[in-house]
Amino acid sequence: MEVLTTNNVWMMICTGLVFFMHLGFGLLEIGLTRQKNTLNILFKNMFIITVGLLLYALIGFNLMYPGDFNGILGFAGFGLDSPLTTSGNLDLAYNTGYTYWTDFLFQGMFAATAATIVSGAVAERIKIGPFMVFTVLYVGLVYPIAGSWKWGGGFLDEIGFYDFAGSTLVHSVGGWAALVAVVLLGARIGKFKNGVSKAIPGHNIPLATAGVLILWLGWFGFNGGSVLSADPEATSLTLVTTCLAAAAGGVSSAMVSTLLYKNLDLTMFLNGILGGLVGITAGADVMSPTDAIIIGVVSGGLIVFAVSLIDKLKLDDPVGAIAVHLVCGIWGTLAVGIFGFKAATNDDGELLNDSGQIVSTLSEAANEIAFLPQLYGVLAYAGFCIISSFLIIFSLKMTVGIRVSAREELEGLDAHEHGMDAYPDFRLNEH
Amino acid sequence: MEVLTTNNVWMMICTGLVFFMHLGFGLLEIGLTRQKNTLNILFKNMFIITVGLLLYALIGFNLMYPGDFNGILGFAGFGLDSPLTTSGNLDLAYNTGYTYWTDFLFQGMFAATAATIVSGAVAERIKIGPFMVFTVLYVGLVYPIAGSWKWGGGFLDEIGFYDFAGSTLVHSVGGWAALVAVVLLGARIGKFKNGVSKAIPGHNIPLATAGVLILWLGWFGFNGGSVLSADPEATSLTLVTTCLAAAAGGVSSAMVSTLLYKNLDLTMFLNGILGGLVGITAGADVMSPTDAIIIGVVSGGLIVFAVSLIDKLKLDDPVGAIAVHLVCGIWGTLAVGIFGFKAATNDDGELLNDSGQIVSTLSEAANEIAFLPQLYGVLAYAGFCIISSFLIIFSLKMTVGIRVSAREELEGLDAHEHGMDAYPDFRLNEH
Amino acid sequence: MEVLTTNNVWMMICTGLVFFMHLGFGLLEIGLTRQKNTLNILFKNMFIITVGLLLYALIGFNLMYPGDFNGILGFAGFGLDSPLTTSGNLDLAYNTGYTYWTDFLFQGMFAATAATIVSGAVAERIKIGPFMVFTVLYVGLVYPIAGSWKWGGGFLDEIGFYDFAGSTLVHSVGGWAALVAVVLLGARIGKFKNGVSKAIPGHNIPLATAGVLILWLGWFGFNGGSVLSADPEATSLTLVTTCLAAAAGGVSSAMVSTLLYKNLDLTMFLNGILGGLVGITAGADVMSPTDAIIIGVVSGGLIVFAVSLIDKLKLDDPVGAIAVHLVCGIWGTLAVGIFGFKAATNDDGELLNDSGQIVSTLSEAANEIAFLPQLYGVLAYAGFCIISSFLIIFSLKMTVGIRVSAREELEGLDAHEHGMDAYPDFRLNEH
Repeated sequence: MEVLTTNNVWMMICTGLVFFMHLGFGLLEIGLTRQKNTLNILFKNMFIITVGLLLYALIGFNLMYPGDFNGILGFAGFGLDSPLTTSGNLDLAYNTGYTYWTDFLFQGMFAATAATIVSGAVAERIKIGPFMVFTVLYVGLVYPIAGSWKWGGGFLDEIGFYDFAGSTLVHSVGGWAALVAVVLLGARIGKFKNGVSKAIPGHNIPLATAGVLILWLGWFGFNGGSVLSADPEATSLTLVTTCLAAAAGGVSSAMVSTLLYKNLDLTMFLNGILGGLVGITAGADVMSPTDAIIIGVVSGGLIVFAVSLIDKLKLDDPVGAIAVHLVCGIWGTLAVGIFGFKAATNDDGELLNDSGQIVSTLSEAANEIAFLPQLYGVLAYAGFCIISSFLIIFSLKMTVGIRVSAREELEGLDAHEHGMDAYPDFRLNEH
Repeated sequence: MEVLTTNNVWMMICTGLVFFMHLGFGLLEIGLTRQKNTLNILFKNMFIITVGLLLYALIGFNLMYPGDFNGILGFAGFGLDSPLTTSGNLDLAYNTGYTYWTDFLFQGMFAATAATIVSGAVAERIKIGPFMVFTVLYVGLVYPIAGSWKWGGGFLDEIGFYDFAGSTLVHSVGGWAALVAVVLLGARIGKFKNGVSKAIPGHNIPLATAGVLILWLGWFGFNGGSVLSADPEATSLTLVTTCLAAAAGGVSSAMVSTLLYKNLDLTMFLNGILGGLVGITAGADVMSPTDAIIIGVVSGGLIVFAVSLIDKLKLDDPVGAIAVHLVCGIWGTLAVGIFGFKAATNDDGELLNDSGQIVSTLSEAANEIAFLPQLYGVLAYAGFCIISSFLIIFSLKMTVGIRVSAREELEGLDAHEHGMDAYPDFRLNEH
Repeated sequence: MEVLTTNNVWMMICTGLVFFMHLGFGLLEIGLTRQKNTLNILFKNMFIITVGLLLYALIGFNLMYPGDFNGILGFAGFGLDSPLTTSGNLDLAYNTGYTYWTDFLFQGMFAATAATIVSGAVAERIKIGPFMVFTVLYVGLVYPIAGSWKWGGGFLDEIGFYDFAGSTLVHSVGGWAALVAVVLLGARIGKFKNGVSKAIPGHNIPLATAGVLILWLGWFGFNGGSVLSADPEATSLTLVTTCLAAAAGGVSSAMVSTLLYKNLDLTMFLNGILGGLVGITAGADVMSPTDAIIIGVVSGGLIVFAVSLIDKLKLDDPVGAIAVHLVCGIWGTLAVGIFGFKAATNDDGELLNDSGQIVSTLSEAANEIAFLPQLYGVLAYAGFCIISSFLIIFSLKMTVGIRVSAREELEGLDAHEHGMDAYPDFRLNEH
């Protein structure tokens, strides 16, 4: 009971930190875009958090953790349990460490993240109505079904695919949809003139920076809570690898971009930190500090090249969401197959070696995580997410349309969709 | 001892989160008002936090928790204990779960909140000196005396009035004073022209949004800590009901206001979230998820109608504090009498049924909380808060005056009272 | 094991809070300076956090906690342990309460702080390249060597010098370097005209205020975590003294500055809060609430006079870092020798009196902390930090130069060093 209490305290704190990431995402997203679309972005974000949580209570949680199921699609019924019936039910089949309520809320805070990632990529020109429809379907159905394949004990869990806290299950799931949406939506007016990419600077870099630091803090909960207990060794190692990868990602990204572009680019520094965080997420609990730094360094370099490549492909991703969440998400997932070890344990928490015998030191118990299941997992999610997001967004495009009018885009979505300004007391430049 | 340590860790974290709400309140309040009064509002907020905490140490804590008393007014003496005498004194009569110091600090962070609620309603035209006097009296005397009636074991506690975390004891106590102050102070110049209400837009909606998300996070501690232990079931159920009510409040408010005004109003969305949070606060530990969503939906709807009604009554509440804290505070308190159940427990934490016998499941132990004591509590606080806040503010109005000059109001309080600008590098619009 | 788990949870939370202070420092620093140097400051801050953490992993941690050493300089080797070897190693010689990983990360978050303090003082005119070199040397070598003298068990620890959470070891270490840097760097253009000091107002006071509240919250972890366990009495007393000193510092500073300058100065209020926090840091665990308030009141007064004195000395410290971190750091360290008591305990946590006998109450165990070791510690750090920071910064000045060109300073470091604006959508004033 005391262990459960401590586990539960840790998990509730982590839940709060993951919730707080939504402020980080919001500030980052508005900071890297123009002031005329600020309210629109914030409205989208508030919609994602609130509707995402309600949907997860209604169907998502029971779709993602259906109990025994066929490994591809299961559903344990609508809604949450009643406190009058679950009170004694502190030990769940898939987790003996904390309460049903904590479990729901922690997972629910994750769910909204996938749509938030998309929100950044499609900012400044998507119609808010269709985006809401997309959010409902993607957070309500696609994310939890995809999640059930691994975290719900589905077919990818059975083949040994490993994704500790969601480089693939959260970040790539969002990243693939971001890529599809950006392709279907087209670039912002003025982004590519005569085939030349033009930078559209973000309007509030202090808020963007605050957003990244809030996200980093939130990742203490995102990764730290994914241990699903307060186990001292696992949680604290996870925080160390998480922070070292973030630091290495930022430094790497800043160095590479400075070497290439002779410019100390703060935005690249920030995205490098996020790239390091996304990269370590799949294996934060199974890396050494050195591995974490390597993963971060590679993530940071990837960010610079991916941002440039996406630009050359004439894809317009205002906040760099595809580079951060998709590219580094894939890299991080594969990196687990390169660097990761996994210490098997039995139900009593004792270490097991390859043959299933109890051993006393971690080094005897450590097993390499294989590369192929990681690759297979990446491809499975790619297929499912590309297809489902394409079906949703393409249907919306063909019916109600997904893009605002040119006039609305030029004048700003705040004035047209919300009838308000974000900063009415300030004199502003037009662009 | 280990249980105490874990409880204490949880309560310290919640204390930090409630402290952090003061940043949320500050950002929300400046975000929804004009830039020319920004420093003034922030100064008031810093005053409330610092002086509020010192006053609570000097008199408030011992006024609110006087030990055995007549149920209406008691006082256990000035100041806090010395660490040299309280060291062994970890078990307090009213709470066996954590230390004296944690108890003081958690309650102290609550105390300042009541005055902060008023601060928002009177923003942009109140004289800062008289507001400071009001704060000292309201936080130092009125709030703790009112609090003693229920949380200190006073007469409302004895009749079965239930207010888990302060829909009434904190939010309505602030809300009533806000209403009185707004009536006595009058509207801002230009708010009502020829009988028609004119919107005065807030100057920094990103900061207001950040404020609301910080407040939501802070509510993890406000409600989660009000369990007064780390009990896994109670704390985690509380966080779930809190978050679901917040989400439902926001969605409801956004939908109702969109239906009525054909506009996706971010401010209404934000206030709906806050309304849901205030609404669930009285019964966050005794609601099912479904009840929490209903309470949130009603709160969100109430916000839209209350904001409109307050406007029609020619009351000028720049941030919507009365709608959020008073209206939803009353609703949430009454809702406990409609939806709430309360599981009685003995000192060993065993569940008891109506007859006081030990039972093994929550459903056997669950009791309805009666409606009438809730209504009685609401009325008792209304009477005491209206009278005391009227006496304080009216006295100030008749003596030193409570309103700045028209010139000062038009030119902004920052320039006049503080001799500084909040944003000196930015070009600003006059209004 | 359960105690270790709870300790570890508390320490991880405190680690997160200390990390979050870097956002507080960043917002405070940009808020109190001009918009044209915003990106530059944020870039420096991100550099300090990321490189600081990596350096601490590479050398700092093992330099600061070298194990048995000569008391002045020791080094336990490069890099961190491997998770494959440290797994069972939960009990460390210098700390039995939590894991090796938590210990590294908590201390690592502290390390970067010293350089951040300097960053504020040299803002708006230092060359970023040389500042990076300074950061690497100061965070990588000077800070951990200085830290080893007390926290690593070095010679100052042996003579009874007491610095609970770093009034000297962190804040003065940063403050001395800030003083040296400001002297060597000279004032910003326009700060002193014909011998008269001219205020250069900060461009975003809301963000500065947010920074201070975030720092206050972060101090829950900075001081609360310095207990190095979740001991209920020690942690909660520490939070109470920390918050009361902060509150008293703010009120004192606001009152003194209002009396002197007839102006409700928010910036002084904010720096008073920080001064109170820095002042209590050396003895937050050994003070009574009354002592904490006295320490805060003195800190707040010192801030006002120190800011004025530094100005008269023609030293240009844009954010008041020297007054806050150096002056109040010294005061706080000496105050421990005036007010502080220290309860000795044996390995089982039992209280000991002066003669080493087990006693049952804290008052029997309480010992005064002597004043002279405190003074000696302050002087030792003064000597080491002044000399080492002078050597680093003077070398940089004589070789690559430490100051940007006049043109770059006037036009802003953002445009020159980063090729970007912090707020491109806003119309700005030149100055």
